[in-house]
Amino acid sequence: MSSKKIYDYQVNEDLALFVLIKAADVRSAKNGKKFISFTFADRSGEISAKFWNASEHEISEFQPGKVVLLKGKRENYQGNPQIKILHLRLATEFEPNDSSLYLRQAPVSFEKMESEINQTVFEIINPNWNRIVRYLLNKNHAAFFKYPAAKKNHHAFAGGLAYHTLSMLRLARAVAKQYPVINASLLYAGTILHDMGKTIELSGPTATTYTLAGNLIGHIVLIDEQIVEACHQLRISENQEDVLLLRHLILAHHGLLEYGSPVRPHILEAEVLHQIDQLDASIQMLSGVLHHTEPGQFSEKIFGMDGRNFFRPSEDLKDPSKK
Amino acid sequence: MSSKKIYDYQVNEDLALFVLIKAADVRSAKNGKKFISFTFADRSGEISAKFWNASEHEISEFQPGKVVLLKGKRENYQGNPQIKILHLRLATEFEPNDSSLYLRQAPVSFEKMESEINQTVFEIINPNWNRIVRYLLNKNHAAFFKYPAAKKNHHAFAGGLAYHTLSMLRLARAVAKQYPVINASLLYAGTILHDMGKTIELSGPTATTYTLAGNLIGHIVLIDEQIVEACHQLRISENQEDVLLLRHLILAHHGLLEYGSPVRPHILEAEVLHQIDQLDASIQMLSGVLHHTEPGQFSEKIFGMDGRNFFRPSEDLKDPSKK
Amino acid sequence: MSSKKIYDYQVNEDLALFVLIKAADVRSAKNGKKFISFTFADRSGEISAKFWNASEHEISEFQPGKVVLLKGKRENYQGNPQIKILHLRLATEFEPNDSSLYLRQAPVSFEKMESEINQTVFEIINPNWNRIVRYLLNKNHAAFFKYPAAKKNHHAFAGGLAYHTLSMLRLARAVAKQYPVINASLLYAGTILHDMGKTIELSGPTATTYTLAGNLIGHIVLIDEQIVEACHQLRISENQEDVLLLRHLILAHHGLLEYGSPVRPHILEAEVLHQIDQLDASIQMLSGVLHHTEPGQFSEKIFGMDGRNFFRPSEDLKDPSKK
Amino acid sequence: MSSKKIYDYQVNEDLALFVLIKAADVRSAKNGKKFISFTFADRSGEISAKFWNASEHEISEFQPGKVVLLKGKRENYQGNPQIKILHLRLATEFEPNDSSLYLRQAPVSFEKMESEINQTVFEIINPNWNRIVRYLLNKNHAAFFKYPAAKKNHHAFAGGLAYHTLSMLRLARAVAKQYPVINASLLYAGTILHDMGKTIELSGPTATTYTLAGNLIGHIVLIDEQIVEACHQLRISENQEDVLLLRHLILAHHGLLEYGSPVRPHILEAEVLHQIDQLDASIQMLSGVLHHTEPGQFSEKIFGMDGRNFFRPSEDLKDPSKK
Amino acid sequence: MSSKKIYDYQVNEDLALFVLIKAADVRSAKNGKKFISFTFADRSGEISAKFWNASEHEISEFQPGKVVLLKGKRENYQGNPQIKILHLRLATEFEPNDSSLYLRQAPVSFEKMESEINQTVFEIINPNWNRIVRYLLNKNHAAFFKYPAAKKNHHAFAGGLAYHTLSMLRLARAVAKQYPVINASLLYAGTILHDMGKTIELSGPTATTYTLAGNLIGHIVLIDEQIVEACHQLRISENQEDVLLLRHLILAHHGLLEYGSPVRPHILEAEVLHQIDQLDASIQMLSGVLHHTEPGQFSEKIFGMDGRNFFRPSEDLKDPSKK
Amino acid sequence: MSSKKIYDYQVNEDLALFVLIKAADVRSAKNGKKFISFTFADRSGEISAKFWNASEHEISEFQPGKVVLLKGKRENYQGNPQIKILHLRLATEFEPNDSSLYLRQAPVSFEKMESEINQTVFEIINPNWNRIVRYLLNKNHAAFFKYPAAKKNHHAFAGGLAYHTLSMLRLARAVAKQYPVINASLLYAGTILHDMGKTIELSGPTATTYTLAGNLIGHIVLIDEQIVEACHQLRISENQEDVLLLRHLILAHHGLLEYGSPVRPHILEAEVLHQIDQLDASIQMLSGVLHHTEPGQFSEKIFGMDGRNFFRPSEDLKDPSKK
Repeated sequence: MSSKKIYDYQVNEDLALFVLIKAADVRSAKNGKKFISFTFADRSGEISAKFWNASEHEISEFQPGKVVLLKGKRENYQGNPQIKILHLRLATEFEPNDSSLYLRQAPVSFEKMESEINQTVFEIINPNWNRIVRYLLNKNHAAFFKYPAAKKNHHAFAGGLAYHTLSMLRLARAVAKQYPVINASLLYAGTILHDMGKTIELSGPTATTYTLAGNLIGHIVLIDEQIVEACHQLRISENQEDVLLLRHLILAHHGLLEYGSPVRPHILEAEVLHQIDQLDASIQMLSGVLHHTEPGQFSEKIFGMDGRNFFRPSEDLKDPSKK
Repeated sequence: MSSKKIYDYQVNEDLALFVLIKAADVRSAKNGKKFISFTFADRSGEISAKFWNASEHEISEFQPGKVVLLKGKRENYQGNPQIKILHLRLATEFEPNDSSLYLRQAPVSFEKMESEINQTVFEIINPNWNRIVRYLLNKNHAAFFKYPAAKKNHHAFAGGLAYHTLSMLRLARAVAKQYPVINASLLYAGTILHDMGKTIELSGPTATTYTLAGNLIGHIVLIDEQIVEACHQLRISENQEDVLLLRHLILAHHGLLEYGSPVRPHILEAEVLHQIDQLDASIQMLSGVLHHTEPGQFSEKIFGMDGRNFFRPSEDLKDPSKK
Repeated sequence: MSSKKIYDYQVNEDLALFVLIKAADVRSAKNGKKFISFTFADRSGEISAKFWNASEHEISEFQPGKVVLLKGKRENYQGNPQIKILHLRLATEFEPNDSSLYLRQAPVSFEKMESEINQTVFEIINPNWNRIVRYLLNKNHAAFFKYPAAKKNHHAFAGGLAYHTLSMLRLARAVAKQYPVINASLLYAGTILHDMGKTIELSGPTATTYTLAGNLIGHIVLIDEQIVEACHQLRISENQEDVLLLRHLILAHHGLLEYGSPVRPHILEAEVLHQIDQLDASIQMLSGVLHHTEPGQFSEKIFGMDGRNFFRPSEDLKDPSKK
Repeated sequence: MSSKKIYDYQVNEDLALFVLIKAADVRSAKNGKKFISFTFADRSGEISAKFWNASEHEISEFQPGKVVLLKGKRENYQGNPQIKILHLRLATEFEPNDSSLYLRQAPVSFEKMESEINQTVFEIINPNWNRIVRYLLNKNHAAFFKYPAAKKNHHAFAGGLAYHTLSMLRLARAVAKQYPVINASLLYAGTILHDMGKTIELSGPTATTYTLAGNLIGHIVLIDEQIVEACHQLRISENQEDVLLLRHLILAHHGLLEYGSPVRPHILEAEVLHQIDQLDASIQMLSGVLHHTEPGQFSEKIFGMDGRNFFRPSEDLKDPSKK
Repeated sequence: MSSKKIYDYQVNEDLALFVLIKAADVRSAKNGKKFISFTFADRSGEISAKFWNASEHEISEFQPGKVVLLKGKRENYQGNPQIKILHLRLATEFEPNDSSLYLRQAPVSFEKMESEINQTVFEIINPNWNRIVRYLLNKNHAAFFKYPAAKKNHHAFAGGLAYHTLSMLRLARAVAKQYPVINASLLYAGTILHDMGKTIELSGPTATTYTLAGNLIGHIVLIDEQIVEACHQLRISENQEDVLLLRHLILAHHGLLEYGSPVRPHILEAEVLHQIDQLDASIQMLSGVLHHTEPGQFSEKIFGMDGRNFFRPSEDLKDPSKK
Repeated sequence: MSSKKIYDYQVNEDLALFVLIKAADVRSAKNGKKFISFTFADRSGEISAKFWNASEHEISEFQPGKVVLLKGKRENYQGNPQIKILHLRLATEFEPNDSSLYLRQAPVSFEKMESEINQTVFEIINPNWNRIVRYLLNKNHAAFFKYPAAKKNHHAFAGGLAYHTLSMLRLARAVAKQYPVINASLLYAGTILHDMGKTIELSGPTATTYTLAGNLIGHIVLIDEQIVEACHQLRISENQEDVLLLRHLILAHHGLLEYGSPVRPHILEAEVLHQIDQLDASIQMLSGVLHHTEPGQFSEKIFGMDGRNFFRPSEDLKDPSKK
């Protein structure tokens, strides 16, 4: 079997490869028989497929999270790729059946992300911000480096939360260096914590859903509550100015009340945090979409960009300074 | 001196009475001389007045919070009442110079409010909700019964916060009784706590301003943080369903994200809490405005009611069932 | 045959019972054959089902309004209940074939609703309001107690219009009692009339549609026109203040121009009428939705609540003070 | 005394002429003395002026509606014209003291407007529409030809209502002729009636204010009620299709719910009526504003045009085909 | 074969006629086989149809732009007309296979449109406007008289762009004649040019799509750029007032920024141009929709009219003055 | 005379210094006398002052653009600084009377800005983008380095346009380096040209107003037209893909139609250009406002930031890594 991934096959090419079942919805066809609507995934992306006339046994076997050997043909359905399934079976214990092998990963290793983020913590000079950040980074360590940043849209992959944070820290560093008016420590502290509440809001890196706390409270308030609790543990007064500033950065980082922030930004660093959050999220989202768009074509309409579609320029206009 | 209050005088009537200086802004007239723009208050309401050619001594003497003997004439300026000052001096120690005598008060006594609210706490059957409410009512006791519910608009008087809460509890009781689907304990607990964060958001009952925490965090999140802290003190898990429901009621009570709630209501009692909050606030606000509007006339435009003006019907259409 | 209703069956349970055909849309399957998409109903609720390969005879027989004996199995399709039809035939003359037995009803009897509403009319002290209300209640009597309050969403059942009115009168009574500033007579008169135009706007209790007058004029203006006509009949001047106030309550009761009121509320009782209308409609709508939601789960998204879904708390958090 | 009108004088030119007092607001200056803020008018337009140190006698004498002899100088105050008053006295009985001589008038005579509108009534072929229009034109005859179409903005002059109606009828004729799909009778009937409710909404041609019915009901519903009443008088069923269509035209003519129509246009003629209403109002409003703007300059911001200012092109670009 | 057109057949009537393939989307059915979703057209309108089990040969043969002989039956599917295909083959060379015979056409001939537009150019008195209009009319002559005015909605037929322009010129003439304040030359010049950029924005009269320039620049800016270029060619300064006025008319003609105009109208003629554009587009769009709606029924919801549906009155209410 | 600037004086401190008259509005006081409302400026900022009882000679002498010797006292008026004028005279020819000495300047020298921008032009690899940028930079050279970026708000100082461009280029470089997907050449070209139309839209660096072209066309379209013209001069086809992309960047850079872009961003670099424009403008605007706000206080409400006020943290929280 070749080492090709699911997105390496051309339309109408036969394929045979191991993939992860990301989703498996059972439905009734109009003839009354059951079928499974699959989403298969490996690290090259996700593709959907229909499995007709599924037996009860097959339905119970082909569950999300399982690795399967998929044989079939890559097709196109109304402009979107799909797989025509010819044969499907579970991977055996002697085959590559570890689901984590098929999950999309952040493009930077866990160790590198951790080291670069820790490096930035050293640059947080204010002792209260520094201690709070370290306390919460420690407390939520495992989930923080494993969780995606979202169910779908931007950074929806394992490690996506840390990668989004890291990417924003790089932007934050460039901006803080360019403009003397910005308090770098405050901006770094806010950046590291701003989305950490997603470790409570979301259920984890696979089959990601919203928790009850996520639905009823939301990640913005969830991490704010943890900051206040961290203050109690660290015997820092939660009402002193620097702590209020940090909480304000977290609470205001969606920028607009309509986007779920209970307050709008009222300090400079809060406004900047909001804008670099948007900038990184937009570039990451468009980067993923354009990767799957043909040169010279428009993409599908993108929900997270107000339903706009984006044009991918022709190959001969590519930036020659980039590899 | 008669016992008339400031709103008892007719236009063009001479007056002499003790009043509280609520605000005293020093400005420069076009002739270069200083004048003080006063807001005088007693329990009948507030009226503005200008004090021309103020000396430095007078400016330092006539500070907000002082009680003064005011002699002058009640006039009308562009449809609004004002006082023409003929004479002004501080009240002496032998005169009624206690500022609290001139502050508008809730129409129900502190003792009665406390007793009726405590009575409702008994009806909160769920033990976690009951303990959290009692803990926070105890912790914020003094401020809760003394603070206004707002800087201006509705319930902007001493005790206004408790009075607004009490008034909503009465509505909550009627609604919970009428609709079996409503969980009364949850609705009562949410009602008592929903605005308690204003004891941190606002500076106090006189010369009320927003604190830094009020401006940067807001009363909704401030009390939510206290609920989480109360859970820690009371060894209640902050993530169990009943605690999430209660926090959700508080966080969602402004109804819309645009009004500063970080989540919209997603349980029935949260929706009801939001609506009875609006209902009580509207009636209280209109009640105050119509009290100062002539029968058969429209009021000024009311900022808190989207800039609408309201008509006060003629006296002969008054509800004969009300005294 | 058991006395179970359609919503009493579990998923995958076989069923056999009499139900009403609420809707029967004939469509073409992809194989070119016709099928009927049914909505079956009894007093426990409504469930959809597909009837494959329908003959012309069956299409002509299974019309909305007919009672049928349905044999099949309760299934689940993409989270929504549906019925797999195994056998279907019309009810005979010796079976319970009266369609009214299967229509959802207001939870209060017609007699009780009429008596309680009449009781309130006695409390309308202003003679003009009293006479107008009695005139129109009399004129529209039959339809008023039989019609639903809407095509779908809240109070979409036989008698729903009167039940919604009654429920609001109970709220109106509680509110009028609590706040002395409210004119109870005006609020009661406005409440009784506010939705009476729906007797012209809608076609009736079964297979409810909008009439041409409903589509081109709307229920708000339709009942306002009747008030003016009532004045002519009763020789009350339509331009005197009390009549203007009552018409204003009706015209303004949707609260916002965007919701179809030609004027926004400009008297206190109009604002209150609008708000208790919303409160009753919301609770009634959520009550129905949560009834069909599993404890511990979120409901479907509800169109009439801005597309929000609502969480039904676990059973062990139920209000113990309610049966 | 010259026959110059108030807008014929240059800045800094001395003036002496008879004018009408359109408004006279008494205020207190900062020195405590009273002054009158006048709006003077003649048929060339309106200009404001301040009358300092007004005595009680002068205040009682210089009332709105009086004609006065004004001597002073035309000045400019922050870009707006104003008059510096040097002398002011009431016109005597031997001088031109009839207020109607100073009111702006529609540019077409009453007789011509009446004749042209009546001519159009003949072209309304549907007998019900024809009879309703004639009935209401007759009933509201005096006010219809005397009232302005608004308090300010477009057509705010005596006869403005009839003139606006006439101007729209001319547009309606051109449009109906160009597009065969339009029912001319319906469009003419709707045009004649669409704003007739302003004869109840407004108080009259001088010192125009909103009546209580105008504030609480609004001109759209007020004329709709009269159409229904006309049907009763003329024994036309109010619920037959042609009457519903006509009422729909009136109710929908503001186009959007936000602009106070209780329904949006749902028939072609209703949409056209709305659009030609807007077209005539815009041209009339801009026509008035540009008349007082210097060539080559932008006008003030115009409230009725969403706050936009408009540019008046240079004189040498004038349309040479117009005189 | 009869000369009936596709919209002349009744539901369930057998049909056999030549039609144009307007669109042909190939899809996979749930059984895995391919089918073609056709849109057939002739001058009576467009109807969709499904062609099941399409072979690769048939897919390659039945391309958009081809004329076919269609045999089948007219049916109704969920309220919309559709064709059940019984037989389909390409038209031979001896049959009427010219696609232009089946395209909807403007109701006025090309020659008549050209002559009437040219006539209006003579009435543009300002020499710069006149020369620019003639230059661009000449430059874009072929496309201008052949293109539709839109992909769908109003004027989506061959010659639609010129017909829309002509229709607006007729309105412009009526309006300019009625209101002396309007500069007719400017309004005519703006009208002729306002949508000419669509000859670059759209791909042509058949199988109309947006070009890359259309998607990235838009027709408003595309024609503005051509005006500036025309000035260079004609040695007219692009910055003199009259040229700025004309460019402003074009740029502002969508009326609102939200509709894609980079500036809002700030001269009278720009406002008028915007409004008559809307008026003609609305009437044309509704005219088409109502033509396919049964008398006494509501149409489908119309996307281009904010999703409103429109009522077509009964036949006996038709305007008797129109044939 | 000391070398103190106008913002170096404390409240109530006497001052004597040369300043520039930035604005001088003549108004009438309530006593009928004229006064001049001045805005004085030097490089520390702008302060207003009133000059009472101005003679005609003084009015003609004290024109905007003149340098004057100002003696007076710095005061505070309703929270804003103002000057009480004691003496005022024009600067003589022997005194520092060159107005450019008093204009705020970009914090980077003209030479340094020019060199850094030219350096970036070298990095634009695509030859068409490179040639167009160089052509237009050359054509508009003088104005580009002298003009402000706005009348008020951000970068409203001499050289502000080039400084804003330079500052964005620095951000663009950081972003392009961090994300491989970005075409750096395109982003740099778009950044340099995006606001260059302001050299036509605005009148110049002193007494900045909008030109007629600025008001009627706007800077976005004005520079787009120049790009097309540059193509003609350089014999580059205006319709090839790379030119369309560059024009799209310019046209879309306001991000939303509501902000005046005729198209929204539909390529990645256009979205990024829009976001870094916003980021630089926000930081620059806040930087200026916070500079004049006391530590520990909130600023005035800032129009360009949706009316939000911003908090300046206490001095002891300053970033210790910045000087």
